[in-house]
Amino acid sequence: MSGFVRGPLAPSTGAQWPLSIDDVEIHGGPFGRWQRINREHSIPLGLEQMERSGAVPNLRLAAGEGEGTFQGYRFQDSDLYKQLEAVAWEQCRLPGDAYPAFIAESAALLARAQRPDGYLNSHYQMVKPDLIYQELEYSHEMYCAGHLFQAAVAAARAGCGEELLAVARRFADHLVQRFLRDGDDGIDGHPEVETALVELYRLTRERSYLELAAKLIDNRGKGLIADKGMGPLYAQDHLPVREAGTAVGHAVRQLYLEAGIVDVYLETGDESLLECSVRRWEDLVATKTAITGGHGSRHDGEAFGERYELPPDRSYNESCAAIASIHWNWRLLLATGHGRYADLIERTLYNAFAASTSADGTRFFYVNPLQRRADLFEDAYLGRRREWFACACCPPNIMRLISSLGHYVATADAEGLSVHQYMPGTIRAGGVTLDVETDYPWDGRVRFTVRETPGGAWTLKLRIPAWSPPGALTPDDNGYTRIRRDWEPGETFTIDLDLTPRLVLPHRRIDALRGCAAIERGPLVYCFEQIDQEAGLDDLALVPGTRLRAVERDLPGVGRTVLIEAEAVRLPPAPPGEPPYAATTATTATTASGDLRDHAPATATAVPYYQWDNRDGGLMRVWIPLV
Amino acid sequence: MSGFVRGPLAPSTGAQWPLSIDDVEIHGGPFGRWQRINREHSIPLGLEQMERSGAVPNLRLAAGEGEGTFQGYRFQDSDLYKQLEAVAWEQCRLPGDAYPAFIAESAALLARAQRPDGYLNSHYQMVKPDLIYQELEYSHEMYCAGHLFQAAVAAARAGCGEELLAVARRFADHLVQRFLRDGDDGIDGHPEVETALVELYRLTRERSYLELAAKLIDNRGKGLIADKGMGPLYAQDHLPVREAGTAVGHAVRQLYLEAGIVDVYLETGDESLLECSVRRWEDLVATKTAITGGHGSRHDGEAFGERYELPPDRSYNESCAAIASIHWNWRLLLATGHGRYADLIERTLYNAFAASTSADGTRFFYVNPLQRRADLFEDAYLGRRREWFACACCPPNIMRLISSLGHYVATADAEGLSVHQYMPGTIRAGGVTLDVETDYPWDGRVRFTVRETPGGAWTLKLRIPAWSPPGALTPDDNGYTRIRRDWEPGETFTIDLDLTPRLVLPHRRIDALRGCAAIERGPLVYCFEQIDQEAGLDDLALVPGTRLRAVERDLPGVGRTVLIEAEAVRLPPAPPGEPPYAATTATTATTASGDLRDHAPATATAVPYYQWDNRDGGLMRVWIPLV
Repeated sequence: MSGFVRGPLAPSTGAQWPLSIDDVEIHGGPFGRWQRINREHSIPLGLEQMERSGAVPNLRLAAGEGEGTFQGYRFQDSDLYKQLEAVAWEQCRLPGDAYPAFIAESAALLARAQRPDGYLNSHYQMVKPDLIYQELEYSHEMYCAGHLFQAAVAAARAGCGEELLAVARRFADHLVQRFLRDGDDGIDGHPEVETALVELYRLTRERSYLELAAKLIDNRGKGLIADKGMGPLYAQDHLPVREAGTAVGHAVRQLYLEAGIVDVYLETGDESLLECSVRRWEDLVATKTAITGGHGSRHDGEAFGERYELPPDRSYNESCAAIASIHWNWRLLLATGHGRYADLIERTLYNAFAASTSADGTRFFYVNPLQRRADLFEDAYLGRRREWFACACCPPNIMRLISSLGHYVATADAEGLSVHQYMPGTIRAGGVTLDVETDYPWDGRVRFTVRETPGGAWTLKLRIPAWSPPGALTPDDNGYTRIRRDWEPGETFTIDLDLTPRLVLPHRRIDALRGCAAIERGPLVYCFEQIDQEAGLDDLALVPGTRLRAVERDLPGVGRTVLIEAEAVRLPPAPPGEPPYAATTATTATTASGDLRDHAPATATAVPYYQWDNRDGGLMRVWIPLV
Repeated sequence: MSGFVRGPLAPSTGAQWPLSIDDVEIHGGPFGRWQRINREHSIPLGLEQMERSGAVPNLRLAAGEGEGTFQGYRFQDSDLYKQLEAVAWEQCRLPGDAYPAFIAESAALLARAQRPDGYLNSHYQMVKPDLIYQELEYSHEMYCAGHLFQAAVAAARAGCGEELLAVARRFADHLVQRFLRDGDDGIDGHPEVETALVELYRLTRERSYLELAAKLIDNRGKGLIADKGMGPLYAQDHLPVREAGTAVGHAVRQLYLEAGIVDVYLETGDESLLECSVRRWEDLVATKTAITGGHGSRHDGEAFGERYELPPDRSYNESCAAIASIHWNWRLLLATGHGRYADLIERTLYNAFAASTSADGTRFFYVNPLQRRADLFEDAYLGRRREWFACACCPPNIMRLISSLGHYVATADAEGLSVHQYMPGTIRAGGVTLDVETDYPWDGRVRFTVRETPGGAWTLKLRIPAWSPPGALTPDDNGYTRIRRDWEPGETFTIDLDLTPRLVLPHRRIDALRGCAAIERGPLVYCFEQIDQEAGLDDLALVPGTRLRAVERDLPGVGRTVLIEAEAVRLPPAPPGEPPYAATTATTATTASGDLRDHAPATATAVPYYQWDNRDGGLMRVWIPLV
């Protein structure tokens, strides 16, 4: 079955089988809307940037065409590769004339830029030809190769990738020759090529690609990359992957590495790989994951912090880390069939990932903190979404995930069909056509109608989210409710997920969130923006056990939403110059400002986190103090 | 009077007049001990590193002597300059044969390395001769010059600096020619030369040095330095100094800049400079200063954060920032006579600064966080003090402050003598010899005995620390108790500062410390190290309003100390895999682990923060949760 998947992942084993992008249509809801905006606004903006940012001009230089000098970072090529992948999945999802032409043109340029021996990297070819493969610790040469391979796989599966695939294979063969056959033990400082090589293997059945991926993973943690001042944890080179117990260093690197590890497991059956990845997943989810699903607690090194180091204000939560996390969790879900991975995909999709892009699809966050403070007035970098970045890894990465989103909604197995994410639309698999009607995430009712069925009994498995309170639907050990029937065309099944807003408290070990609460409703994490408050946001504190009232709204700049109103008190503003620390003998006060109770009642109003920063640049916080 | 000061600062105006280093002997206590260890262990280690780290070999290369290539950072010369300054103050404090010889040898080498036109920087002379003054935004050329000037002033005031001063003046004249006379408006990305130029002016009376310092300060915030990716705040180039309202960017840069601003005010009387610096001081102390006096909340950019952004675990609190803060506060104290600056010097000296060095004087912290977490086992960089650093700005900076510490203890004015810091020893000023006997900071009694007096009435002013509870000693508006008498030789006066331990709460706006308390006793901030606890440190929570019991101890590795025992509860350890966030409707719980009261009583034991990390590499926290 997997050989026919038109989507990012087509493993040859696994508990669940992925579907093609065009087997899942999303007809509405936030993600249907986003797919439309991605096509109409984001992708055109990205294509424009391929010229302006230097990505395409650099390759022209490498091809001996055009004039000028290399622009941007050494990994500038990867922007084009991710943009190509986005366009290819878009072509797969909803064919358009312009896309195959762009892919063909780009492939032809890449073919001209590529060295006869298969090597391809415009930066090293133009700027540092003597240092090719000589500074792998930060060169991103294999990282860029990986994104090329993924773009080629996407184009091939979209039916317009012959020339791009040829370019990719020549480069892959060049890597195989040097790093597998000739015995060079080098590894790239930035993992990404591993998961890409496995997918290229899945497409081409060229086994050396898989073998190289496995070797690169096995070579990690042996000190084979030089330490360029960031320390060995930065690039996950401190311990072999089977020994490392916790996610460390640069978050995107760790997460792409994990995707590759599960990919190699899926093709080789090496259980030790799945086991170590699951071990780190459990640790990561319990101790190093933001409530939004975001990963990376530190700006310094764009890195994971230590266990329970989860600051709201200075968390990094890079948009690319959210994407890499979804990639990894998708592989774990396919490998094991366990809904906890789909739960985390949902949390990440609706929060850490969805916040990356403005409501109009034209501005992006690189960093997704859980709090924005007041003092930005002296800062030229206002902490708001921007149209593009000098280091533009995130925008095209966001676009490729949105274009391929249909792939992540449902799976099949020998028993039937599993639905992991609830979006209105149509799912086709194994002769079944299933319509999904829902106003999720605003409403908890999801109605499934079997439009076509091959006959005979099969099981419809529906994920019961971990946030869902115990109710009529009892999930199995994997977190799914199972409906096995001789389905008839036209037959329906409806679930009602309880979207009562939830007041959420942090683990006592998360020092940065002590004494605070957050609000969730269904899959959505909420935040408080200054613009919605009747007092200074930093002077509001929630009443413990507050009732939470959901209110539907259509907000200018934001669009449709459900706000949540909570009972709060309004504290007197802190006078300037008040001492920051004060001695006490009181047995009730917990701040230098004294007891916070007995203040004027107020309402605090929360908006879904993913919709923040679409109005002004004011204060925001996900975690708000309790009185 | 100021012309005769043998010490770092000799302003020609000001409310208080500084004393010479050798007018204040420190006979014991933590700082007397540290001065001895600094001389016996730290300085010899530093001198050894001048060869090993490349600082001296680089200058040999620039002088056309020796072989090899440039080693280290572009500001490597500054390590030698700070080391020279430490040695010069040491010579001033307690003359020794080896010191003048090292200074003379170094000065001769510098003279040979210096270009005929006066320019001197081994990195730019050897590595980038074409880029001299072409990349001021990060070249550190004037920064290094500043440290040279300070070393030369120190050597001159110690009576062994003729040749070094000649080198310094040639370089200073070269800077004056280019950046004052020839109209180059360049400023250094790293302020430091400003305060140094003013002191060189004070020593030499060459007014162009002062004029250049004033011009460099006036040129800040006009966008004259290129932004090399760190943003204009990083180097305080976002706003003119008279407009900037809050400390921003790289902390050490901001703080050295402030020292220079107050220095220029002291020599020119430009009140707008004092005013803007005081305005930022008030903001800084209220919103951006750690309880230890540490500055810099972010690793990223070694920078100040936003207001109330004061994380305990990821605070930076660079040792050099503590030193720069003491420099700035000393200038404000001399300018205004206000004890609040001496209060902050005390807080910084005993905590943020004193923690920088191990009890044996051979290992140093670059970063001084207020919490060390558990997960260091996978990290090769263990977060412990180290013998030296690739970027070794801190160790010789620490040494020069300790060698010159006598300068910061007391001042004179027209009325008499002011004592700002309480250390056992002898103070000489204006014909008065004053003995100070005290076991401070372990004991609060300080006895002053007038050994010599010129006759007639004069005032003894004694700082009443802000932490001191209201008592018999009523401070004046500047925070000093004043004893005006016709002092007789042998006459004594005793103060008793109340060292009852204090439970301290953070301002409610400091999100990262919510729900926590810290302990102070006298000038000492305390911390909890795992080694002193009867349970896991992360499972202890203090009882609000706890009694605090002081216990004298002599701890192996630490030496003499006073521990503090507090009433706590022992919480059940968090089981691995426990969810990090959980919904609740409870009106009492504030963590996902439920209500924390009703657990087994326990004792939590605190040790002075400056003495931490002298035993093992275990957990530490200054701020501990309240139940």
